[in-house]
Amino acid sequence: MSAPTPAKAGLEDVVAASSAICYLDGDRGVLAYRGHDIHDLAAHATFEEVCYLLWHGRLPTRAELGELQSQLADARHLPERVLRLVRSLPLDHAMDQLRTLVSALSHFDSGAADMSSAGRYRTSVRLTAQISALVATSARLAASGGPIAPDPALGHAANFLYMLTGNRPSTLEAKALDVALVLHADHEFNASTFAARVAAATLTDLHSAITAAIGTLKGPLHGGANTDVMKLLVELGEDATEEKIDGTIRARLARKEKIPGFGHRVYRTEDPRATHLRRMSRELGEKSGHSKWFQMSDRIERLVKMEKQLNPNVDFYSATTYHALGIPPELFTPVFAVSRISGWTAHVLEQYANNRLIRPRAEYVGPAYPQRFVPLDRR
Amino acid sequence: MSAPTPAKAGLEDVVAASSAICYLDGDRGVLAYRGHDIHDLAAHATFEEVCYLLWHGRLPTRAELGELQSQLADARHLPERVLRLVRSLPLDHAMDQLRTLVSALSHFDSGAADMSSAGRYRTSVRLTAQISALVATSARLAASGGPIAPDPALGHAANFLYMLTGNRPSTLEAKALDVALVLHADHEFNASTFAARVAAATLTDLHSAITAAIGTLKGPLHGGANTDVMKLLVELGEDATEEKIDGTIRARLARKEKIPGFGHRVYRTEDPRATHLRRMSRELGEKSGHSKWFQMSDRIERLVKMEKQLNPNVDFYSATTYHALGIPPELFTPVFAVSRISGWTAHVLEQYANNRLIRPRAEYVGPAYPQRFVPLDRR
Repeated sequence: MSAPTPAKAGLEDVVAASSAICYLDGDRGVLAYRGHDIHDLAAHATFEEVCYLLWHGRLPTRAELGELQSQLADARHLPERVLRLVRSLPLDHAMDQLRTLVSALSHFDSGAADMSSAGRYRTSVRLTAQISALVATSARLAASGGPIAPDPALGHAANFLYMLTGNRPSTLEAKALDVALVLHADHEFNASTFAARVAAATLTDLHSAITAAIGTLKGPLHGGANTDVMKLLVELGEDATEEKIDGTIRARLARKEKIPGFGHRVYRTEDPRATHLRRMSRELGEKSGHSKWFQMSDRIERLVKMEKQLNPNVDFYSATTYHALGIPPELFTPVFAVSRISGWTAHVLEQYANNRLIRPRAEYVGPAYPQRFVPLDRR
Repeated sequence: MSAPTPAKAGLEDVVAASSAICYLDGDRGVLAYRGHDIHDLAAHATFEEVCYLLWHGRLPTRAELGELQSQLADARHLPERVLRLVRSLPLDHAMDQLRTLVSALSHFDSGAADMSSAGRYRTSVRLTAQISALVATSARLAASGGPIAPDPALGHAANFLYMLTGNRPSTLEAKALDVALVLHADHEFNASTFAARVAAATLTDLHSAITAAIGTLKGPLHGGANTDVMKLLVELGEDATEEKIDGTIRARLARKEKIPGFGHRVYRTEDPRATHLRRMSRELGEKSGHSKWFQMSDRIERLVKMEKQLNPNVDFYSATTYHALGIPPELFTPVFAVSRISGWTAHVLEQYANNRLIRPRAEYVGPAYPQRFVPLDRR
């Protein structure tokens, strides 16, 4: 065995594998899926086109897109036994629900054990549709509403809002969520995607790998951050004066507390996703005549930039965007999963296609070896 | 950002973090928990003592061990709503069941959200008892037997065999499983433990991290291997002649097929765990007057060593040991989890105590950036 290579804590800046999915340049603020700049995709592509791009490596023709759209629409119908399971679980943390339900999907899915290349792809498509339906349906039940049957005429983003709220969204609302889904679809070896790849590298099934990713995304240092942004805004209150905002943020910074939604392990510039979410948050506010949350966010951004030279990340303006769409804060992380399932599955498929078990080493810093064994009676 | 450090595929020989739990020297064939050599522990310590050692960093006094034993015995009783859930799931892959059920435990556990240091420890103890009870109970139901209530007078290994088979095991049987549990309890940054740490490093909860580990252990390149060993033996048949064994193994090697239970990413010598499992497998065979499976394994070991210079790993003799204990092959990987939960939780507690988000980078090898965006109508 060659001597182990020491790495920086948290594997920071360590290349764990090669990947053809996501190009990320933290210094220049570039994010691209399969070589396509995120700004082009946010402006011109739908979430379904991005799914196809992530899975196949190129954008779809109209016929290919149509086929994927109908596969997704077909898979939105949850099996009756899964709906019964949703009803039987306590209405607790939405990410716990999602983790248990996605794991349980495998028991009622005759294709789940099909580990052929075509079978794994079909499972990826099904999971992408099902996670959206599960998040909407369990949220309906938690709010004591009945489940809403999917509408096959609606696109992925619009159908999610319809199944969640019972109302067909406006064009702007559907577009805003669609852009948010495009922006969250993939981000290289973020923690949840990396967890999915570590699982998949044992050649376990997709449901196992995605369940691992959901449990990882739940963490407050990962998917939980946009919920914390909204919590901060709500604590300040919609009628907060500029003085109150400034005072609260400055006091937090003085106590060396983190402001949720700022800074990123990889980006040293503005997170390119924040640019689009800022615009969506502003447009939704203006359209509804209810711009206060956006204006508060804008003020916080200026202040944190000035005081700490930190840029907002993807979480910061997704909070007010989701809020304007009628999505409650406890669903912000599940909505992240509704999008990221596309990237998770793309990475798991890539891992399967060129696999090597992911098994690093530890630097041992415990009691010296060998410790003397003292029998129980003499301890 | 500094230039990313390229690593070997699968993070082989890359130190991902420091850890005070497991000392592993693959060249000398050393495995030690908290500095205590695995040979001492296999000979003199019970699984409960090893749990204490992994969690606390030292062996327990008699009083400390007694307290842990009663905490484990208390937690063996599964909540009625979880038993109902076990009954409602299809009787499919036992690891899928375990993944869904451990995820579901969090919904019925008022302590699951207690992320204080004491709360996390209590959850680790509960999960260790519950996973054992879940594996035994869902296997009973799959075999159309009724669930068996735990016996608080029995140790962890003996109680598991009792809840699984309905019979109180002999001293030798209880000891054999206890030794197997001690040997499987931890193994540094193996794939499932590493997946649990990647999840925990986002500060997600224990149930999420352990669910990720279970899904990872399911993979045929990880926990699935001992099931494959038994499959090979059963295919050969209990009445296989030496000529048939030799012919089958040589033919497999000639086709460059892997023989399950041989070779290891870390060990270059005999896996120190194999030494004890070989002995348990032989003793159980002699005691029952039913040594055939052991003798077949022994012959396969000699042949593979001679032909390929490969040593048996932990999986090879655990197969016949478990078989002799009346554990069916589909439960071999779940039994691995019954033991490894101790190491998983020790690593997750260590990760929480000194946390840094685990977020490596990828080497991008996809389409050149930037790709020109062609609108849908012109593709």
